[in-house]
Order: sequence, then C-alpha cells, then structure tokens
Amino acid sequence: MSNVFTVIMAGGSGTRFWPLSRSALPKQFLPLTSQQPLIAETMKRMSGLSTPSRTSVVCGAKHAALVKKALPKLPRQNVVVEPEARNTAPAIALACAHVAHADPSGIIVVLPSDQHVADVPAFQKSVEEAVRVAETGYIVTLGIKPTRPETGYGYIRLGEPLSGDARKVAAFAEKPSFETAQGYLVSGDYLWNAGIFVFRADVMLAAFASHMPELVKPLDAIRAAWSTKKSAAVLAREFKKMPATSIDYGVAERAPNIAVVPSSCGWSDVGSFNALPDVRPNDAAGNVSEGEALVIDSSGCVVLGGKRLLAVVGMKDVVVVDAGDAILVLPKDKCQDVRKVVEALKKQKRLQHLV
Amino acid sequence: MSNVFTVIMAGGSGTRFWPLSRSALPKQFLPLTSQQPLIAETMKRMSGLSTPSRTSVVCGAKHAALVKKALPKLPRQNVVVEPEARNTAPAIALACAHVAHADPSGIIVVLPSDQHVADVPAFQKSVEEAVRVAETGYIVTLGIKPTRPETGYGYIRLGEPLSGDARKVAAFAEKPSFETAQGYLVSGDYLWNAGIFVFRADVMLAAFASHMPELVKPLDAIRAAWSTKKSAAVLAREFKKMPATSIDYGVAERAPNIAVVPSSCGWSDVGSFNALPDVRPNDAAGNVSEGEALVIDSSGCVVLGGKRLLAVVGMKDVVVVDAGDAILVLPKDKCQDVRKVVEALKKQKRLQHLV
Repeated sequence: MSNVFTVIMAGGSGTRFWPLSRSALPKQFLPLTSQQPLIAETMKRMSGLSTPSRTSVVCGAKHAALVKKALPKLPRQNVVVEPEARNTAPAIALACAHVAHADPSGIIVVLPSDQHVADVPAFQKSVEEAVRVAETGYIVTLGIKPTRPETGYGYIRLGEPLSGDARKVAAFAEKPSFETAQGYLVSGDYLWNAGIFVFRADVMLAAFASHMPELVKPLDAIRAAWSTKKSAAVLAREFKKMPATSIDYGVAERAPNIAVVPSSCGWSDVGSFNALPDVRPNDAAGNVSEGEALVIDSSGCVVLGGKRLLAVVGMKDVVVVDAGDAILVLPKDKCQDVRKVVEALKKQKRLQHLV
Repeated sequence: MSNVFTVIMAGGSGTRFWPLSRSALPKQFLPLTSQQPLIAETMKRMSGLSTPSRTSVVCGAKHAALVKKALPKLPRQNVVVEPEARNTAPAIALACAHVAHADPSGIIVVLPSDQHVADVPAFQKSVEEAVRVAETGYIVTLGIKPTRPETGYGYIRLGEPLSGDARKVAAFAEKPSFETAQGYLVSGDYLWNAGIFVFRADVMLAAFASHMPELVKPLDAIRAAWSTKKSAAVLAREFKKMPATSIDYGVAERAPNIAVVPSSCGWSDVGSFNALPDVRPNDAAGNVSEGEALVIDSSGCVVLGGKRLLAVVGMKDVVVVDAGDAILVLPKDKCQDVRKVVEALKKQKRLQHLV
C-alpha cells in the first residue's frame, strides 16, 4: 500500500457550541465526545493507517498553538497555517503541496477535525478500501449510510459499481427538504457527504489543473518556494489569490473520476448539543451530564456543568451549559438558536463572552 | 389611637428559594420583590402607623446581624433573639413581654417578615381598622380575600359582623383540597390566613393564661428578669420550657374573642420563585429577569442572573437562577421540588451549597 498521509482540516470556527466554543476555542478543540478534544480523536482514528510524521493539520494562525497542544505527537512543522480562511479547496491545495513535496504519489486522507466516529474499525476498513480505489486514480469520498431523514447534510447519489463496495458517484445533492430526505433514505441510493476525501496528491493536483485552473498559478508559486526562506512571504502573498471555494463545488462536483465508499461507522458531525446524546453515555433517563451536574427527575437533557453546582430538576429535553463566564439554557430541539445569543451579544458589544 | 407596636417575626428559615436562600440567609433577607429585602419592605409597610422605636424583630441568634443590617433604623435593643426556634406562640409571647414592659395596653401588630403587599394604603387601612377592633379586646387577624382556589394556605371562615368590615371568626380551616378551595372561593365566606395578628399586649397575655397556661410560668420568669443583668440567663433557661406551638393552634383556634378584618391589599406570601411574576415587573412575554440575564424567544420565565451571563433561549415557564456557587433550572410549576435538590445535597454532604 502507498504511504498514507492524513490531512486534518481544522480551519473551522462556529458558534453552535457557544458558550463552550469561542472564536479562540472552536469546536474541534473541545472534548465533546470523550476526555480528548475532537481533533485528537480524529488523529487517533487514523492510528495504524497513517503516522504522526505523515499527518498534517491545516488551521488558522490563531489556532496553531491549540493544535500543537491538542496533538503533542504531531511534528511541529506539520502544522500548516492558512494565511486566511478561504474555504476547503485552497486548504486542500496547500495540503497537497505539503505532501507532494515529500511523496508526489502519496495518498492523502482529508478529514474534518470536528467529527465523531463510534466504530473506528469499520471506519478504518472503509478508509483502507478508499485508499485502494484512490491508488487507481480516483478521488474517493466516504459516504455515510443514512440512518434518518437528515436535512442538515449534503447527499451523494450512488453510481455504477467499481471494485468491492466502491461505486462511482452519480451526483452530489444539496441539503434536501424533509420529504426529499425521506425519499433518499427509503431509496438506498443516497449517502451522507461527510467531507472525507481520499486521493493521490498528484491526482488532486491534476484535478485542480482541470477544474480550478485559477488556483494553479498561486499554488505553483507556493510549491516552488516550499521549504525555502521565502516560503512564508510567498504563501502570504499567493494564498489569497486562490478562489475561496469548497473542494466539493470546485472539484468533486466537476471531476469525472469521483468514487464513493459506503461506510457504516457510527459517524456523526456532532452538529450541536443535540447530537451529544447520540455520541456519549446516557443515564437511564437519557440524560448526558458532566461536571458538577445534579440532574433530578429529568429526561433527555444535556447538562454540561462546570465547577459550580448545576442543579436541573423536572426538565425534559433541554440543554443546560455552564461555561464559567456564561450559562446557556435552551430546548434540545432549538439548538440552532444558539446563534441568536451570539448575534445579541455582538449587537450589545458584549464581546467578552464570544472570544 | 393607642401606641401601635410592630413585631416582625423573622425566625423563619426555608429552602424554597434555594439557591438564593441558605440557612445563613433565609428568604426574608433576600430582595425578592424590590431592591430591598422582604423584611425591610415589611417594616416600611408600617410607616405612619408605627415607629422604628416601637418596632421589634424576633429572630434567631444567627440572623441578628442580618436584621440589623437590613433595618438600619431599628434600635439595636429591639432585636429580640429567640434562644431557639419554638414556633410562633413563644416568639409572640416574648414580643408581648417586650412591649408590655413599655406599654401594657399597647397594640401589637404581628407581621411575618417575608411577605409582599402590593397595595400598601389598603393594607394600612385594614391595619387601622384591626387596631380599632383590637382596642376593644379582640385578637384580630387580617384575612386576605382569596383570588384563586389556593391549596397552600389556611383559611378563615367569617362569623357574625362586628363594627365596620370586621367580623368574628367562625373557624380556622386547614389547607384545603383543590375542590374544597374552589368551594371556599365561590362561597365568599372564607379568607386566607396570612399570619398577621393585631391585639393589645394585655389581651394576648390573658389569652396565653387561659389557653396556653403552661407558657405562663416561664414567660412570667422572663418578664420578671426583663432589663436586669439576669435577663439573658433567665431567657435562655425559661424559653425552652415554653410549648413549641403556633399562635394559630395555641390561641387563635381556642380563644372566643377572635376577629378578622377582610383585606384586599395585593398580599402574597411569595411562597416560591413561581410567585415572582405576580409581584414583580414582567416583560411583554411575561418574563421576570434580573442581573446579567439575556432572555430570547421565551415566555413566562423567571430568570435571576448574577454576575455571569445567563442566556435563556426558547424556553417557556421555567425558573433559572444563578446564585454564584450554584445554578438551578426547573419548571415554574414544580418549584416545590427545590427541596429535592436540598435533600440530595444533604445526602451527598455537599453542604457548602446550603449554608
């Protein structure tokens, strides 16, 4: 098998886990599913397939220190700092430049840094199959077999069979309506797009040349200066010339050599507090709790206490979070409304609760 | 009009306002209805009827300092410390001894320290009427006209008319079932027993002699030693000999000379967090909030923030309280279940959250 390089995408910053997540501490650095931050679980998930020296992390400058702290085994030079957030295509281009410098035909596994996988052996089996397909020149995505009519994800429609379980991708589909999602679920022809890609570095560089030619010139300039004294200056200058496009839109939806390996690995994007009961131990009444939580006569609640006593009595399906300087209470099915708090705080210039 | 002495009963300690109320800081010392503690509002309510020098407060030793702090105008010698909590009859006996020492036929108005009155002029009018009836030798209670079929209060059944609005008391009734309370409300013959009593000191002393004779010997010993060097020692020795009985059971339900003045003064016993929307300003959605509260898309909530941000989003009819070291979340209609937290903390020996 080829050398497998892991590229962990850690440029994300969201507000869905406020007040735990902040602009200075995004979701991927929170220990949401275990004692370890999500990004550490992500790296651990590749143990045996890849190595720390063949793992790199793409992140923003202000999170580089967090990456190093969360991943002590990661060689420091493998923290690839994006000069600015420009979506996934430039970040993956940067990762390709990094890997191609070491091994032009090395296999790259791109993983978002903030997801959960319950069944790691199943995940590794899927990745191994994806690597085999990628070796033949495909850009391979892992497609998660849907378990509910989810409207929050993009979908992948299965095409003609390749080797083993792998299939060509017939099409990518946007986030569907609930009715459409139900149809997808029943049909068996659709998988969730988890944003996990497996490909040879040279194959992706060729795909950029074909489908995102405007990205090639700045990328070539960056590659030419790689490991020289000028590298930082060139990167800063050229990176912002790349189109701020997702790898899905820029490459995956356009290239003909896209394949998918279906996987049932207990995947979750851990999209909000509402996802925690699916990925963490529950008590008999379906509550998830941690810290100084005291949960009485309650069911289906997510109670994340801190150092202070957090007493929740007689509640059903609510989220209660104590983050030290801020406390949040909201119904579990309205987790998306966390953004309303963030918006209000911005409007009121109470920025200390956001950074 | 006779001299009117106010006796404020501040011996209570409850858990219904945990985590705000603690054994060292009972409800009457909390600013639950205004910027002032309930006990300060209670004293203020008697302005014009009584004076600070004719006001005394009966409390336990560990709360004497709080009384002095909450009532800076109260002469320090008017803080009457009960050697131990023995229900209301001994406390009122002590107050009678205190007042009779100054004015044997002075009128005493006994007020619980932890209630709310919205319409103070109406309250004062009722007290004035009660004083006039008390001057003629009655023990008078204020009876609150019920506004709902409340099952948490005792009731007073109206008897034959006396002067003005005053009536003799036909009977005291225990806390009723809901059906009985509905009948009481419809009949118009029942009033809430608010624990407010108005009487001449000598009349109450005579009533003790008739109906609680076992209280008289220790009380006489305490009165004989009043203002002497031995007073503290005698009080400590004799007080615990008095029966630990309520004034209702010991005197009011037995004496023939009991009258009631009906009052509609916006009275509330502020029995739990659930009562706060009735006695405090609400926003347009019926929420009560204070401190660093951020209440979004919510209705009917009681959100008592402290110094930390307390964000409540999309909730209905819940109580959320941040008391610094402890946070409470529970449905507004389950406020009585606060005691379950207190019980759990006692069982777990987490006493730091109770004192």
